[in-house]
Amino acid sequence: MSTIMVLNGPNLNLLGTREPATYGYETLADVEVMCREAAQTLGHDVECHQSNHEGVLIDLIHEAGRRIKAGEVLGVVFNPGAYTHTSVALHDAIKGAEVPVIEVHISNVHAREAFRHHSYISPAAAGIVVGMGVQGYVLGIQGLVHKLSSTPSKTK
Amino acid sequence: MSTIMVLNGPNLNLLGTREPATYGYETLADVEVMCREAAQTLGHDVECHQSNHEGVLIDLIHEAGRRIKAGEVLGVVFNPGAYTHTSVALHDAIKGAEVPVIEVHISNVHAREAFRHHSYISPAAAGIVVGMGVQGYVLGIQGLVHKLSSTPSKTK
Amino acid sequence: MSTIMVLNGPNLNLLGTREPATYGYETLADVEVMCREAAQTLGHDVECHQSNHEGVLIDLIHEAGRRIKAGEVLGVVFNPGAYTHTSVALHDAIKGAEVPVIEVHISNVHAREAFRHHSYISPAAAGIVVGMGVQGYVLGIQGLVHKLSSTPSKTK
Amino acid sequence: MSTIMVLNGPNLNLLGTREPATYGYETLADVEVMCREAAQTLGHDVECHQSNHEGVLIDLIHEAGRRIKAGEVLGVVFNPGAYTHTSVALHDAIKGAEVPVIEVHISNVHAREAFRHHSYISPAAAGIVVGMGVQGYVLGIQGLVHKLSSTPSKTK
Amino acid sequence: MSTIMVLNGPNLNLLGTREPATYGYETLADVEVMCREAAQTLGHDVECHQSNHEGVLIDLIHEAGRRIKAGEVLGVVFNPGAYTHTSVALHDAIKGAEVPVIEVHISNVHAREAFRHHSYISPAAAGIVVGMGVQGYVLGIQGLVHKLSSTPSKTK
Amino acid sequence: MSTIMVLNGPNLNLLGTREPATYGYETLADVEVMCREAAQTLGHDVECHQSNHEGVLIDLIHEAGRRIKAGEVLGVVFNPGAYTHTSVALHDAIKGAEVPVIEVHISNVHAREAFRHHSYISPAAAGIVVGMGVQGYVLGIQGLVHKLSSTPSKTK
Amino acid sequence: MSTIMVLNGPNLNLLGTREPATYGYETLADVEVMCREAAQTLGHDVECHQSNHEGVLIDLIHEAGRRIKAGEVLGVVFNPGAYTHTSVALHDAIKGAEVPVIEVHISNVHAREAFRHHSYISPAAAGIVVGMGVQGYVLGIQGLVHKLSSTPSKTK
Amino acid sequence: MSTIMVLNGPNLNLLGTREPATYGYETLADVEVMCREAAQTLGHDVECHQSNHEGVLIDLIHEAGRRIKAGEVLGVVFNPGAYTHTSVALHDAIKGAEVPVIEVHISNVHAREAFRHHSYISPAAAGIVVGMGVQGYVLGIQGLVHKLSSTPSKTK
Amino acid sequence: MSTIMVLNGPNLNLLGTREPATYGYETLADVEVMCREAAQTLGHDVECHQSNHEGVLIDLIHEAGRRIKAGEVLGVVFNPGAYTHTSVALHDAIKGAEVPVIEVHISNVHAREAFRHHSYISPAAAGIVVGMGVQGYVLGIQGLVHKLSSTPSKTK
Amino acid sequence: MSTIMVLNGPNLNLLGTREPATYGYETLADVEVMCREAAQTLGHDVECHQSNHEGVLIDLIHEAGRRIKAGEVLGVVFNPGAYTHTSVALHDAIKGAEVPVIEVHISNVHAREAFRHHSYISPAAAGIVVGMGVQGYVLGIQGLVHKLSSTPSKTK
Amino acid sequence: MSTIMVLNGPNLNLLGTREPATYGYETLADVEVMCREAAQTLGHDVECHQSNHEGVLIDLIHEAGRRIKAGEVLGVVFNPGAYTHTSVALHDAIKGAEVPVIEVHISNVHAREAFRHHSYISPAAAGIVVGMGVQGYVLGIQGLVHKLSSTPSKTK
Amino acid sequence: MSTIMVLNGPNLNLLGTREPATYGYETLADVEVMCREAAQTLGHDVECHQSNHEGVLIDLIHEAGRRIKAGEVLGVVFNPGAYTHTSVALHDAIKGAEVPVIEVHISNVHAREAFRHHSYISPAAAGIVVGMGVQGYVLGIQGLVHKLSSTPSKTK
Repeated sequence: MSTIMVLNGPNLNLLGTREPATYGYETLADVEVMCREAAQTLGHDVECHQSNHEGVLIDLIHEAGRRIKAGEVLGVVFNPGAYTHTSVALHDAIKGAEVPVIEVHISNVHAREAFRHHSYISPAAAGIVVGMGVQGYVLGIQGLVHKLSSTPSKTK
Repeated sequence: MSTIMVLNGPNLNLLGTREPATYGYETLADVEVMCREAAQTLGHDVECHQSNHEGVLIDLIHEAGRRIKAGEVLGVVFNPGAYTHTSVALHDAIKGAEVPVIEVHISNVHAREAFRHHSYISPAAAGIVVGMGVQGYVLGIQGLVHKLSSTPSKTK
Repeated sequence: MSTIMVLNGPNLNLLGTREPATYGYETLADVEVMCREAAQTLGHDVECHQSNHEGVLIDLIHEAGRRIKAGEVLGVVFNPGAYTHTSVALHDAIKGAEVPVIEVHISNVHAREAFRHHSYISPAAAGIVVGMGVQGYVLGIQGLVHKLSSTPSKTK
Repeated sequence: MSTIMVLNGPNLNLLGTREPATYGYETLADVEVMCREAAQTLGHDVECHQSNHEGVLIDLIHEAGRRIKAGEVLGVVFNPGAYTHTSVALHDAIKGAEVPVIEVHISNVHAREAFRHHSYISPAAAGIVVGMGVQGYVLGIQGLVHKLSSTPSKTK
Repeated sequence: MSTIMVLNGPNLNLLGTREPATYGYETLADVEVMCREAAQTLGHDVECHQSNHEGVLIDLIHEAGRRIKAGEVLGVVFNPGAYTHTSVALHDAIKGAEVPVIEVHISNVHAREAFRHHSYISPAAAGIVVGMGVQGYVLGIQGLVHKLSSTPSKTK
Repeated sequence: MSTIMVLNGPNLNLLGTREPATYGYETLADVEVMCREAAQTLGHDVECHQSNHEGVLIDLIHEAGRRIKAGEVLGVVFNPGAYTHTSVALHDAIKGAEVPVIEVHISNVHAREAFRHHSYISPAAAGIVVGMGVQGYVLGIQGLVHKLSSTPSKTK
Repeated sequence: MSTIMVLNGPNLNLLGTREPATYGYETLADVEVMCREAAQTLGHDVECHQSNHEGVLIDLIHEAGRRIKAGEVLGVVFNPGAYTHTSVALHDAIKGAEVPVIEVHISNVHAREAFRHHSYISPAAAGIVVGMGVQGYVLGIQGLVHKLSSTPSKTK
Repeated sequence: MSTIMVLNGPNLNLLGTREPATYGYETLADVEVMCREAAQTLGHDVECHQSNHEGVLIDLIHEAGRRIKAGEVLGVVFNPGAYTHTSVALHDAIKGAEVPVIEVHISNVHAREAFRHHSYISPAAAGIVVGMGVQGYVLGIQGLVHKLSSTPSKTK
Repeated sequence: MSTIMVLNGPNLNLLGTREPATYGYETLADVEVMCREAAQTLGHDVECHQSNHEGVLIDLIHEAGRRIKAGEVLGVVFNPGAYTHTSVALHDAIKGAEVPVIEVHISNVHAREAFRHHSYISPAAAGIVVGMGVQGYVLGIQGLVHKLSSTPSKTK
Repeated sequence: MSTIMVLNGPNLNLLGTREPATYGYETLADVEVMCREAAQTLGHDVECHQSNHEGVLIDLIHEAGRRIKAGEVLGVVFNPGAYTHTSVALHDAIKGAEVPVIEVHISNVHAREAFRHHSYISPAAAGIVVGMGVQGYVLGIQGLVHKLSSTPSKTK
Repeated sequence: MSTIMVLNGPNLNLLGTREPATYGYETLADVEVMCREAAQTLGHDVECHQSNHEGVLIDLIHEAGRRIKAGEVLGVVFNPGAYTHTSVALHDAIKGAEVPVIEVHISNVHAREAFRHHSYISPAAAGIVVGMGVQGYVLGIQGLVHKLSSTPSKTK
Repeated sequence: MSTIMVLNGPNLNLLGTREPATYGYETLADVEVMCREAAQTLGHDVECHQSNHEGVLIDLIHEAGRRIKAGEVLGVVFNPGAYTHTSVALHDAIKGAEVPVIEVHISNVHAREAFRHHSYISPAAAGIVVGMGVQGYVLGIQGLVHKLSSTPSKTK
């Protein structure tokens, strides 16, 4: 039973109180419970981290890479928050550490300000779920597990 | 038991034979079987359409809108193919007919040519799943059903 | 007594139900009645078509061109809907078939999203009426009739 | 019987002599006669002003706003000439003084130089008539009167 | 003796009457006769289609792909008309169906409006002939036949 | 029997050794033999020049212009190599000396780097052949001869 | 006791009635009272001007420059209104007449339309106060007085 | 007596030694003394923080939000330094934690390099003071206190 | 002996005191003396106007147009100052009134800020002199006289 | 008596025959005669060069720089032709060799294609004359002589 | 014997394992050994730091600035990794702390994605070495030592 | 002992006299002496060329390619001067002739005008040294020799 790391970037510690019309009323703790349940249904555990520090998130991606190679971790479900739009360093971390990452955004970033339409994370991501509310994390976990367990001859 | 419409846009009839390194080896028939199974697990049926004609797809979105109002259809899982990047008319159809649409892309469009990075559909979509292979349709159905059945006080 | 063709493009079949705050509560049938009355006051009849298919609209422009040459049709009042912003083919159809076209938009497209500010139809149009609500069709008919009946030495 | 103000911006005093292939052979005096006739048919009078000074035009828009509140003026038909493309101040004047303005352009500005394709006035206008020759003023008066007299439940 | 499909896109049915200063006086029927003669000289037949519908053209590209795999068709000479500049779907159809396409434009699109300078078809084309008048179709047929019959070690 | 000048611009002296996956294995000498044969079939001779110097190419275009006026030269088939994308001076030379030029590119420049998508030569060219391999020179010669010998009433 | 000139540009005569959600309910007379009080507290008088005419504002800046050289005026607090975004001439006036200007905007222009994000005045201004409501004029006066009375060795 | 948090972003610890022609000779300690005096005059205390770490600044904005809700803190005067131009995360922190922030820049950023002309902080700020030297912090404190204590019916 | 109108736009009344490193030490009066001498040498008189008001300059261009038609005025030497870069209305005035205008800039605008590199006046000008200091007015007068007196068969 | 070098760039050897509607009917020899007369009137000689080779023009600018230092040459009147728009190397040559250059364009480049609106030469030029026909060379010579002989305290 | 600080930014701790086709097989430890040897040959020591945290790198640049002033450190060789492209704060740190920095990139960033072509560090750097593999650090040390020890009269 | 070709592009013959604040006081002869010494230390000779002609530089790159294949030349250290920013032809020459090139710029081009920030040479270069003064040539030679002699398994 390997672990799925669930990473949340800047300001996601405010979930449930921050602009609920956009982000909903669930707190980050609620999200982590939902993720654990979804992962356990699929035979995995989750480990959750949130940080407002770009450097800490890079370090965590690197750690995920090391633990994937050690067979302890399966992959990462990652909501990079605002660093989505500005962090080449996180893009490079994901590519450099060869970590399968499902990028998740709670709100529909494409229906908001223009500067939220571009993601540096997406080109490095294994999959992307946008605008599904906090249910997006659950879909991200399901997608990650399916992607890594399916036979490569059928899906990319 | 209401119906989920699964719409596929231009060139998706080629699935399984078209650039399999990008789109995988499943055919459109395979995808429709996967969608039916996923929907039935959640207590719904699916109805699948594919067209290379923008006008036919607009007509189908309109039809979905009418049947949603009649309580026959739940919503739409839609892979707009190349019309994603060029069709303001499909954007307007989704908004005008008030249809909840989950936009699905099999490949990671953000890791491909620049003209595939912009979607006219996304601002009108209820959710977006990208780069998950054909499993994205299944996640789209799950996300659509969850979104429409969850209590509005918690998610947007 | 020659005929004025009134063409409506994609999603205008939804008139009256689609975003009424933007497009008003009149249906397409209401609009067609208004157009007929306005035309008959000026001694003309109208023939109304709506299609969500770009190709059908091109075919209709070509038909108008042929019937103008046969003296049966006077010109076209055209609301191209979303194809306004994306269709070089309709631009070419109007120029190629040498059809006098009054372009009509119900809402003020210049007060909406940036992608609605550019029209491929306008450079080929004989006149443009924007943001007048459905009354714009009536003004379009009046403008078309005046333009085609006025002596060329005074207006362009 | 309230008054419609007809405002003409820079260089429109040259009408009839300025590039007649583009603007036609009617003089500004001819236009004002046409406007008066059109308004009187609808039970209104017109008051015509032309200025090459942006500040004078702003002052006139403000005056219109005051007289609309006093019930003396109905609205404005405005050909802003070249200030269309450069005057944020006129945009603000229209919005700030809450004046219903129909923007009129004699020539088809969208078929001319690129710098004529953008209008700062349009997003603040109640309606727009382009490319109809001087008949555009008449259509503008008709559209203004219809818009302000129609029941709000039907048109925007 | 395999067949060369000659496809013509929107408005090319107007050939001979549409802006002859730009497109020449030959009709589409004249072009088809020229193509047949050119193909027969090289031991092939032609099959000619014209449509104003993007979806129909996509369907025809798909059909060409199937018949090429069946050994019945050699390749396509395609004048995509205005869809050249707007259709990602046709680009994808050519790539997805693996059809060798020679793109032909009668007029010199690079000497016309800026929006005609970009082609979505070109990156997917096997060769391009521009500005040669209707003789471009004949050169396209010759180039297609030469390309598909030449030894791969010498040309790309 | 007049002469066709075949001009090759910078780096085309490397043909056959330069990036053969892109440019093929024929040398410039091979190309010149092919051109001579193609021209002689049509009753013309060729004269071939290659230079890496923009100024030399301008001088040659001027020379072509003088010899065309003297009836010695028919026109030019020109592969401007990298100067395609940077040389306003060659554009002006072609226009200024009134030389009919067929622009040829061996590779499909539109499927390569963005800076190869724009040509300063194209707006001044009488025709353009792209992506046909070295066969493009032969098609260019055929197109040039056809264009200059056809009756003007039918093609542009 | 020298004088501070308070200049207000186009549409600011509407203050208190113009879009109060954006600009507040104080009138221009209220603002001038506030400015006078703030200046007198610091031992200065104010002189207030408002104009909708760009030329008048330029003339006033020039006048300020002459009176600064004569020791009568200290500097200018200037809300250029919409000319902020379009007037190179006011930029040049400030630089040319060597007038210390504090630029004031009542609303947060950076949270509004994109065309309000750029200021031609700012690069020529000695300081800028934005989004503070009409209190911004008071802060502007305080900042101006402090700036011109502080010893140059400490602040720029 | 509530507290005003004064936050300084990257490189502002260098104040007094860093490019004094641009930033003046006061040190950060000098600034903090000035701020304390200004706040105490208005009946408030200040708490000063400087960090070169974007994450630390986000954490401090969050802390301010919590302490504002607890009635301990009034608001924030914030010089975001270079993160002004690159940090969407700080924009989101201010909006998400609902913190009234006065943005301060010592130098006139609009008179410097183009990349300093855009601020991600400004659209989320309650007010902005630019180019006033270190006196800008004092004006920022005054503006913040005034804004939060004034009656809402008069200013925005 | 006809008259040459010498028009100077905004801020040129400051000549001699405004940024002399850029504009030199001659005053506007000095310039007008130089112009008169240069014109008289060529048998003409000058009439000099300066205004900071765009509208006044438009009026003067119109007046020039009327007096040219009356044979009283030869043409205009015009330094439009900052309106060079922002005034479509002056562009239209020059074209509309059919006035031959020599555009003069004292400083080398192309070596200054980017927003000074574009001129709306230039496309309407009969000739342009830039960066020659105040001697540019003299060259402008000489050029204007030569242009209007030379035989049309030799120069454009 | 020092010498003025008159340099002409690519295609100017075609003067008199090249697009005379744009460039006039004078030949380059005519221009050189005009230049000689204009220079001799002012007590100078001219030396004229034309080249289609960018490198040759750079060499000539360098030579001018050496001969200016030797007191033999006064400066350069230079029509860079199409290299105006593409040659950073000529820009650098003028700056590097410290040569006073008057840039001359016969036609009004600002009224032609967009790619002719930008000049790499202008920022390095001492003065610019545009659109005066071949008389521009004469004005360039007069301007150059005046500039180099006037006292520096008055003009820049 | 003063010290050279060798700073490595985000993801460079992955060296040797991260995309070795791009970055080579040497580890960061290998690089630090190479740097030490190169520095010692030139009579200096090195001190090596790597961090994924932008704030830590800023702090280190500041520390370098202080120790340079104390005569302990010579300068910095800095590979800013992905922060190259996004960090205005590091740009400001280098300028503000007046640290001579040689910017090093292992791979040829100009041959990779477009977003890697721009560096915020370069305008603040004393020199730049790109694409030399890890040998670039050695060249950076040599260049730094040479630059700081050479006599200023000869190089910039 | 193979040879290193040192190529210098346009205007570098002016070294030592051209803008010494930017380029230093060493002449090109000084640079060539430095290069020879650096190369001989590493067991190689140098051969130095300078040309202001793009075509000559292309020819020299081709010659280098031929002599590399013959084992006579090791590679090229190339300062392309202003052709850096404009020459696609030199880019193609380097790629086409398969020449390892170290691109050298004496000044820090990234701290100068925007048009110097882009290099067409860099994507084709094996390494780049910028802003090191003339010492950059020495570092370029050292880098070239190291690159070509190191084992490929360790560096790219």
